[in-house]
Amino acid sequence: MPKLIKKISKKSGLPPGTLEYTGEKISRKVKITVIDYNEKNFQMKEVSKIDQELINLEKSTVRWINVDNISLKDIVEEIGNQFELHPLLLEDVMNPEQRPKVDDFERYLFITIKMLNWDQEKREILSEQVSLILGPNYVISFQERELDMFDPILERLKTRKGQIRKMGSDYLTYTLIDYIIDNYFIILENIGDIIEDMEEELITNPSPVTLQSIHNLKREIITLRKSVWPLREVINKLQRIEVPIIKNTTKIYMRDVYDHTIQIIDTIESYRDIISGMLDIYLSSISNKMNEIMKVLTIISTIFIPLTFLAGVYGMNFKYMPEIESTLGYPLIWLIMVIITVIMIIFFKKKNWL
Amino acid sequence: MPKLIKKISKKSGLPPGTLEYTGEKISRKVKITVIDYNEKNFQMKEVSKIDQELINLEKSTVRWINVDNISLKDIVEEIGNQFELHPLLLEDVMNPEQRPKVDDFERYLFITIKMLNWDQEKREILSEQVSLILGPNYVISFQERELDMFDPILERLKTRKGQIRKMGSDYLTYTLIDYIIDNYFIILENIGDIIEDMEEELITNPSPVTLQSIHNLKREIITLRKSVWPLREVINKLQRIEVPIIKNTTKIYMRDVYDHTIQIIDTIESYRDIISGMLDIYLSSISNKMNEIMKVLTIISTIFIPLTFLAGVYGMNFKYMPEIESTLGYPLIWLIMVIITVIMIIFFKKKNWL
Amino acid sequence: MPKLIKKISKKSGLPPGTLEYTGEKISRKVKITVIDYNEKNFQMKEVSKIDQELINLEKSTVRWINVDNISLKDIVEEIGNQFELHPLLLEDVMNPEQRPKVDDFERYLFITIKMLNWDQEKREILSEQVSLILGPNYVISFQERELDMFDPILERLKTRKGQIRKMGSDYLTYTLIDYIIDNYFIILENIGDIIEDMEEELITNPSPVTLQSIHNLKREIITLRKSVWPLREVINKLQRIEVPIIKNTTKIYMRDVYDHTIQIIDTIESYRDIISGMLDIYLSSISNKMNEIMKVLTIISTIFIPLTFLAGVYGMNFKYMPEIESTLGYPLIWLIMVIITVIMIIFFKKKNWL
Amino acid sequence: MPKLIKKISKKSGLPPGTLEYTGEKISRKVKITVIDYNEKNFQMKEVSKIDQELINLEKSTVRWINVDNISLKDIVEEIGNQFELHPLLLEDVMNPEQRPKVDDFERYLFITIKMLNWDQEKREILSEQVSLILGPNYVISFQERELDMFDPILERLKTRKGQIRKMGSDYLTYTLIDYIIDNYFIILENIGDIIEDMEEELITNPSPVTLQSIHNLKREIITLRKSVWPLREVINKLQRIEVPIIKNTTKIYMRDVYDHTIQIIDTIESYRDIISGMLDIYLSSISNKMNEIMKVLTIISTIFIPLTFLAGVYGMNFKYMPEIESTLGYPLIWLIMVIITVIMIIFFKKKNWL
Amino acid sequence: MPKLIKKISKKSGLPPGTLEYTGEKISRKVKITVIDYNEKNFQMKEVSKIDQELINLEKSTVRWINVDNISLKDIVEEIGNQFELHPLLLEDVMNPEQRPKVDDFERYLFITIKMLNWDQEKREILSEQVSLILGPNYVISFQERELDMFDPILERLKTRKGQIRKMGSDYLTYTLIDYIIDNYFIILENIGDIIEDMEEELITNPSPVTLQSIHNLKREIITLRKSVWPLREVINKLQRIEVPIIKNTTKIYMRDVYDHTIQIIDTIESYRDIISGMLDIYLSSISNKMNEIMKVLTIISTIFIPLTFLAGVYGMNFKYMPEIESTLGYPLIWLIMVIITVIMIIFFKKKNWL
Repeated sequence: MPKLIKKISKKSGLPPGTLEYTGEKISRKVKITVIDYNEKNFQMKEVSKIDQELINLEKSTVRWINVDNISLKDIVEEIGNQFELHPLLLEDVMNPEQRPKVDDFERYLFITIKMLNWDQEKREILSEQVSLILGPNYVISFQERELDMFDPILERLKTRKGQIRKMGSDYLTYTLIDYIIDNYFIILENIGDIIEDMEEELITNPSPVTLQSIHNLKREIITLRKSVWPLREVINKLQRIEVPIIKNTTKIYMRDVYDHTIQIIDTIESYRDIISGMLDIYLSSISNKMNEIMKVLTIISTIFIPLTFLAGVYGMNFKYMPEIESTLGYPLIWLIMVIITVIMIIFFKKKNWL
Repeated sequence: MPKLIKKISKKSGLPPGTLEYTGEKISRKVKITVIDYNEKNFQMKEVSKIDQELINLEKSTVRWINVDNISLKDIVEEIGNQFELHPLLLEDVMNPEQRPKVDDFERYLFITIKMLNWDQEKREILSEQVSLILGPNYVISFQERELDMFDPILERLKTRKGQIRKMGSDYLTYTLIDYIIDNYFIILENIGDIIEDMEEELITNPSPVTLQSIHNLKREIITLRKSVWPLREVINKLQRIEVPIIKNTTKIYMRDVYDHTIQIIDTIESYRDIISGMLDIYLSSISNKMNEIMKVLTIISTIFIPLTFLAGVYGMNFKYMPEIESTLGYPLIWLIMVIITVIMIIFFKKKNWL
Repeated sequence: MPKLIKKISKKSGLPPGTLEYTGEKISRKVKITVIDYNEKNFQMKEVSKIDQELINLEKSTVRWINVDNISLKDIVEEIGNQFELHPLLLEDVMNPEQRPKVDDFERYLFITIKMLNWDQEKREILSEQVSLILGPNYVISFQERELDMFDPILERLKTRKGQIRKMGSDYLTYTLIDYIIDNYFIILENIGDIIEDMEEELITNPSPVTLQSIHNLKREIITLRKSVWPLREVINKLQRIEVPIIKNTTKIYMRDVYDHTIQIIDTIESYRDIISGMLDIYLSSISNKMNEIMKVLTIISTIFIPLTFLAGVYGMNFKYMPEIESTLGYPLIWLIMVIITVIMIIFFKKKNWL
Repeated sequence: MPKLIKKISKKSGLPPGTLEYTGEKISRKVKITVIDYNEKNFQMKEVSKIDQELINLEKSTVRWINVDNISLKDIVEEIGNQFELHPLLLEDVMNPEQRPKVDDFERYLFITIKMLNWDQEKREILSEQVSLILGPNYVISFQERELDMFDPILERLKTRKGQIRKMGSDYLTYTLIDYIIDNYFIILENIGDIIEDMEEELITNPSPVTLQSIHNLKREIITLRKSVWPLREVINKLQRIEVPIIKNTTKIYMRDVYDHTIQIIDTIESYRDIISGMLDIYLSSISNKMNEIMKVLTIISTIFIPLTFLAGVYGMNFKYMPEIESTLGYPLIWLIMVIITVIMIIFFKKKNWL
Repeated sequence: MPKLIKKISKKSGLPPGTLEYTGEKISRKVKITVIDYNEKNFQMKEVSKIDQELINLEKSTVRWINVDNISLKDIVEEIGNQFELHPLLLEDVMNPEQRPKVDDFERYLFITIKMLNWDQEKREILSEQVSLILGPNYVISFQERELDMFDPILERLKTRKGQIRKMGSDYLTYTLIDYIIDNYFIILENIGDIIEDMEEELITNPSPVTLQSIHNLKREIITLRKSVWPLREVINKLQRIEVPIIKNTTKIYMRDVYDHTIQIIDTIESYRDIISGMLDIYLSSISNKMNEIMKVLTIISTIFIPLTFLAGVYGMNFKYMPEIESTLGYPLIWLIMVIITVIMIIFFKKKNWL
């Protein structure tokens, strides 16, 4: 299970804007990809160094810079210097525990959201932070972990699929966000499948393991909600914000993403309801089991305790016991015992215990 | 039980506006019905092909185009081209998992809501998506499944019942929405009946099956809520929106539909309260049953265990046991046993166990 | 118990404004009362027919028309025609399942609220719909059932009690609403009494019947909430609405009614809290009972099972058992048994079970 | 326990503004205190009659009239006449079940709040209604019960403590409200103490009495909330209202009272959370107790039932039983029994039951 | 555990603005630190007396006065006099139970928040009140307890780390608030660790102690929420307030603190969810344990009760019992007993109890 909250306290007391990576260590080399495109041209190269060339932007071209490692202070700082980004923004980029948000810095927008992937093996959500800086004709994206995450979008850019090459940096930003949020549906489908499996299990064979699974699922949902609820605000702001960087034609697309976000939230809330219902079923299935055990115990005891008492009576050693002397005594006592048993069974039938 | 969330992930990564049907496969042929009417005339025909003639609208006539199959990309695309509809809208039409919403595209409004029907046999809700495009003098409706769903409205159009033939396309849209929402009341009545049956059952004969039914009902209500809550927003927007397409006279009717929606939501919330109360009753009826079982067990044990002990005492083989020698020993021990039993019964009466 | 939702589905598919009574059948004759009054004069007559004379209103007089049966289509329709009322309004008048609301039709206001009465015998709420149409100098009221409901107000009009005769139609409307809402307090008092009785019962003698009563009470509260919550909105709107029909002096009175409504809502919410607390008490009182039963069983078993074992040992038939031969054997075994019992009782005292 | 809702239904049907006292009967004589003060002078007298002299106010002086009995219609009515107060206001003064509120009547403000006192003996809240009428240079206060409630403020006025003598009627009103709300903290402290006592009791010695106490406490909190939540609105309105009667310098003080109110609400909500947690602890402590009882029963039964069976076997009277003849039979059987017991105890140790 | 509410009632009845320390007694001497700094200079001294020199501020310098003891009336009063602070503000400074808030007094802002520290030993939160007065070029801070709390910030001022020396008094205030809120994350991490430990414990070895820990944790969270929720409002107000004291460049930093606050609130709410889930697990683990105990009891009883009955039968002393005479009787009865036992075990296997 993932840690509830990751260590970020080491930063406490440092001045704001101090760049320090606070996530888990990443040892891999950084890959910086620079893509320039407009309707006619498409160019892509990898650079290892941030220099002034990076900000020589042509007006008619959109430049997308993707950095796939946020743990390197020098890289982030240098990009900040070249594009004159606010130090607090850079601090947020390097803190993988950031809450999804959008900040308006006038010359550019800063967006940070969570990319979620489903780990099929461990059956849990992998969360990764993506930060986007949207300028008039550039987009800078920072990823935490995955290398080739945005490949489908690169493919679209290369092959001119859709209208992406005709549109500006705001449309590219939309495309990236849309892609990330589409992935949430995959998570939801996987969780939906688990829920249905577990409902099956609850009915056929509930066990303490089932309870543990319900609890884990609940925590997974809590994590998911923490990523998705702020998203609603983020996308809504992007859809309504009045800045020249985001054109009105793009806002219609943002509205579409907003609808998806609401749908995701709706589904999460439904899941919560269903899971809390499963707990009730679990608890009452335990009670039912106990009832069944009690019934067996009671039936056995209620039938045999009186019979044993009778046997005890005629095992007493009193000198004067007339029944004992009679030849009919023994068969008669058996008869009495059978009658008692039959009465008991009728009683249980009436009580619906048999 | 219906799937919690249907597979829509296959679309992830594709450009927005890509038309692809994401619902269950539909193999039946498409039926496109074109209806033209005004106060004096009424004309209805079926077409198999979308051509330019479709958009040759007369000012004085309302045209209603109904498409009863949303899985065919070509049809949807062609209609989009003819009426110059936004690609995102067409994408939404073909996605049967859309959340109810209304989008304002200036020249036309796009409305998508759920048509709900009650499957009497399986005792569950059948949900179908209906998309409406409302233009100045045309309405395009897309249905997912049912063939003759809107027959009563067609009938009204043909027979001039009510004022529908005198009014414009906005009134037709209102009529369709009103008709769909009226169906929700049928669902609510059916669920109300089930609830009352189940309350009866809870009192007379609760069983694990009852619990399962409560859980299923709860899920049905969750599905229902997901369809109805966004509706509130949709109808409210239609009632307040300031566009020339919707006239003020029609808005009074929209207000009426809004009232119905609120009433439906109120009823759903009441059902939720009642169902959660049923669970409490179920749980405490299980506890009561257990109590009753325990009582029987305790009464039997408490009476016979001491008696059996006594019998055991006089079954001991000690050489020197004066009681055993006496002729009165045996009747006396019976007397003692009867006295013990009577005391026990009085004790149970006092405890209210008998 | 009242039906959760009454059949209104028969109307589905009909054009809006279609007049059809959807409530339970009412066979009694209609009584239409027409009252004209101003500061000096008061006149009251019963009419059986709606004709044009009804709308010949003098400016200086207030006319109150009360119709005590909403099931007759002709009457409602004719009144609608004479006063030029909107067809949707008339439809709402004839639908006794309407949610409380106020609609502004410019020339007049339409208000519909629930009159609640307490059925002392069945201990349940009787709900009846009252619709009010407030014009510049007339008020039309439609009742569902009760004949002489508004008698106290008639009395006030006749006897000039208070200032009612000096004021306009808006004040009459206020008086009617105030009267209806005052009745809610009677309902609340009755429910409050039942709650207190039940709390008494819960402590002294809880039984499954108590649980059933709690559940019924809960449903009664749910019904009550459904009537009262929308009322808040209704009265608030009446208090703030900017229309010439409602004068500012009357709005101060509306504010007073609004305060009452809030107080009613507060009380209902308190009741909900208390009732849900009663359920908790019920459940734990069941658990306590079970505990007590278990204690008795355990005490009896724990004392006698070891003693019975001892008796069993000396009932064995082994040839060589030295204790058996001794004269002291029998008294000694009794002594041991007494010692065991005393130890047990001390143990139970320590456990606080005795 | 206090009644949930007091009888106010006797008023139903009467015209608004009808003065009738609806609380419990008060037999004590009324005391009307008239206090005039400004920075230099202070005068206090008791009057028994309301006459016109009462409204001869000097501009430079603040007059405070305190009436300590709200059940006398004549007094209230006469004050209403002299100060030209609205009849609805007077009705509210005489209704001790009023919800806290502030009404703006332009020439004066009407404020009604609850004075709460803690009855140390019965451990419950005593609620009393206080109504304040704030005019430009007068304050009229109506108390329900307590005679010398406002003594500390009188003292302050007499001794010029603080700045009260320098300020106007609005500051006096603030002082009264502040004093009343300060008393709420005493209530909260007392309830806090009870909660801590009960938590102690829950852990050391839970019993059905504890449950009853939790329920009573919960009801006390419900009563408290009903008094305090509307207060928030009241004070907020007083802090923001734009009327000449309340000066801006006084509003800063109102803001301070507002902060206190919020703090009281926060504490009440915390208490609710804690109390609902106590119920959970109670329920699981009952379950724990049951578990312990079951363990004792099971240990005793599990050890002795097999032993008793063995004893029974060798108590059988079969002619041919070789073990019985042997001299070693009896000691051997004891050995077997000891071994069985030891195995059982090891088993229980492993299960953690001993 | 900390007291739920501290005694503040001793103040009730006193005039507002009366300075009286209401917290726990502090016996330590006060330390007043005065720091003057601008970009070039830094000066720090300790004073023991408040005199007029304190308010001789140079325009180009920021003065920070830190008082580390709020229990001394003279000090607080003298500072109030020198800086002409409102008496209510001074009262709030001396009341350590203040709710976090920001008050705008035009010439200066008054901010009061909670400094939280984690007591590693007692595993509980230590709360301390910090009050800040932000003037155009001065900041006055009052601490409740800790001596060297703000050392890291002093260090930054001395060593010119970050841009703090270049900025005004508003940035210093931001720095202090940011530092305090960064400490909240440490609290959250500690609580997160405890939660994870307890989840481990719940699964491996739940006990009544675990329940007590859950309850304590819940109370800790309640305390935390009471400190953090109002903070949201405070920081939001600081971020949006339109006063010349707070510059726009500083507001961007406030926005960053606001994000942190929201993140803290999110985490607290997640914790609440998880803890309430733990209670469910605890309760059902108790039920599971009871089930297991019941199973053992039932298996033992169900096997041995019938066998004991059989032994009892052949312990009867009837003269005529043919089985007894036979040599095969005894081995046969053993055979029957073994068969019964085997059948029982198969039955339990089928029931899944073994």
